[in-house]
Amino acid sequence: MVGLKLRLVAVGIEGPVNLGYIYRLSRNFDVDELYLVSPSASVTESLRWAARASDEAWEAVVVGNLKEALKGVELSICSSDEVSARDLLRTPITPEQAAELMSSRNGTVALVVGRESVGLTREELALCDLLCTIPASQKYTALNVSNATSIMLYEIYKARARAPPYEPPDAKTVRLAEAYARALTGRVGGDEDEVGLAVRKVLSKATAAEARSLLSLLSKSCSSLGCKEEARRIVEAEGEA
Amino acid sequence: MVGLKLRLVAVGIEGPVNLGYIYRLSRNFDVDELYLVSPSASVTESLRWAARASDEAWEAVVVGNLKEALKGVELSICSSDEVSARDLLRTPITPEQAAELMSSRNGTVALVVGRESVGLTREELALCDLLCTIPASQKYTALNVSNATSIMLYEIYKARARAPPYEPPDAKTVRLAEAYARALTGRVGGDEDEVGLAVRKVLSKATAAEARSLLSLLSKSCSSLGCKEEARRIVEAEGEA
Repeated sequence: MVGLKLRLVAVGIEGPVNLGYIYRLSRNFDVDELYLVSPSASVTESLRWAARASDEAWEAVVVGNLKEALKGVELSICSSDEVSARDLLRTPITPEQAAELMSSRNGTVALVVGRESVGLTREELALCDLLCTIPASQKYTALNVSNATSIMLYEIYKARARAPPYEPPDAKTVRLAEAYARALTGRVGGDEDEVGLAVRKVLSKATAAEARSLLSLLSKSCSSLGCKEEARRIVEAEGEA
Repeated sequence: MVGLKLRLVAVGIEGPVNLGYIYRLSRNFDVDELYLVSPSASVTESLRWAARASDEAWEAVVVGNLKEALKGVELSICSSDEVSARDLLRTPITPEQAAELMSSRNGTVALVVGRESVGLTREELALCDLLCTIPASQKYTALNVSNATSIMLYEIYKARARAPPYEPPDAKTVRLAEAYARALTGRVGGDEDEVGLAVRKVLSKATAAEARSLLSLLSKSCSSLGCKEEARRIVEAEGEA
């Protein structure tokens, strides 16, 4: 039992106002760890906008890319307004669902928000377990990054105040299931990335028992089709990456 | 059946960034009317921060005080982080409750947000039917005004997307009940302002049927105690104010 740690990961923030507001929101909503991925905004300038939260500026961890910021994370959810129904990667969950899933974890969970101009790149979205979209007017869905962050943190704050309603799968189960799914796809045909991501997403929303059942099924199928070695290779390659 | 109109009333906004973000949020969350009470921020400067929502800047109605901004409003709810449990005026509801109450109305409802430096004054809080507080860390409850506005508008947007679950009392019933309560208090003893406000708040959360029952009780009590004239005087004085 290590308890839940909420990590806010802000990617490539360009404006000092938004950066300052993000420091302040981190304090407002009890964020445990703040990671900044290659911010282009000046920390000194942003302090003006952080009000009483300037400590958060100095405690933030600055890293070079999103992969580094997600090290040690059990579950990562990115917030984005770019929705493409045809794109499996981007099938979104709601802020309430995101908050519910995060708050029931035992370990570090990451909320990932992106740059003002272009949001998160396709590669960055792919690094996150789930994508969340804030419901907004069809006339203008693009929320300012600090306002989007405030809504997400507010939902997570509310959910953390409630008791966790279910036991989620551990990260290892999810990674193993994804590796088996990829290996199986390599054997039976299909798009490995697509199937791998689908399995990771489904299991990120499943209970621990559901995840174990699916893992067992995939593992046995791999044995029968002779792709256990390939799955092991995928897991090892991921560990090294 | 006139339908629901959501009016966002921003009081004394001081910074052009926040004003720009408020224009943008008005578009993001389908605000029907934007009222600015004596803004000290420059509209021209704020346009830089409004992104694609600069139309909202020109459509905003600028008035001199909150009373003017609340003309024609059925239900007004202000957002404030200043909570004093001892103060009847400021017993808060949650953002979800505020959103639920507003979205079930048939007419104009107002969300009132206040200046960055000192929020809303005691007099301004008293002009609103209900006060809402956003749950936040006890370490630092003060949210930036645009972030608080985004959370409130997000909850209202979600609630408007659902069907109204109940028939709320009309504004006339609430005002009449308040007047009777004040007149009765003048006759039987007590703090007229406190009781008047309590009745207004309770009825603002009641169903139409509940409100009619209470109005009938207060009206009959007034008749029995000979203070109907006084109640009429209060209603008339309010109409002129």
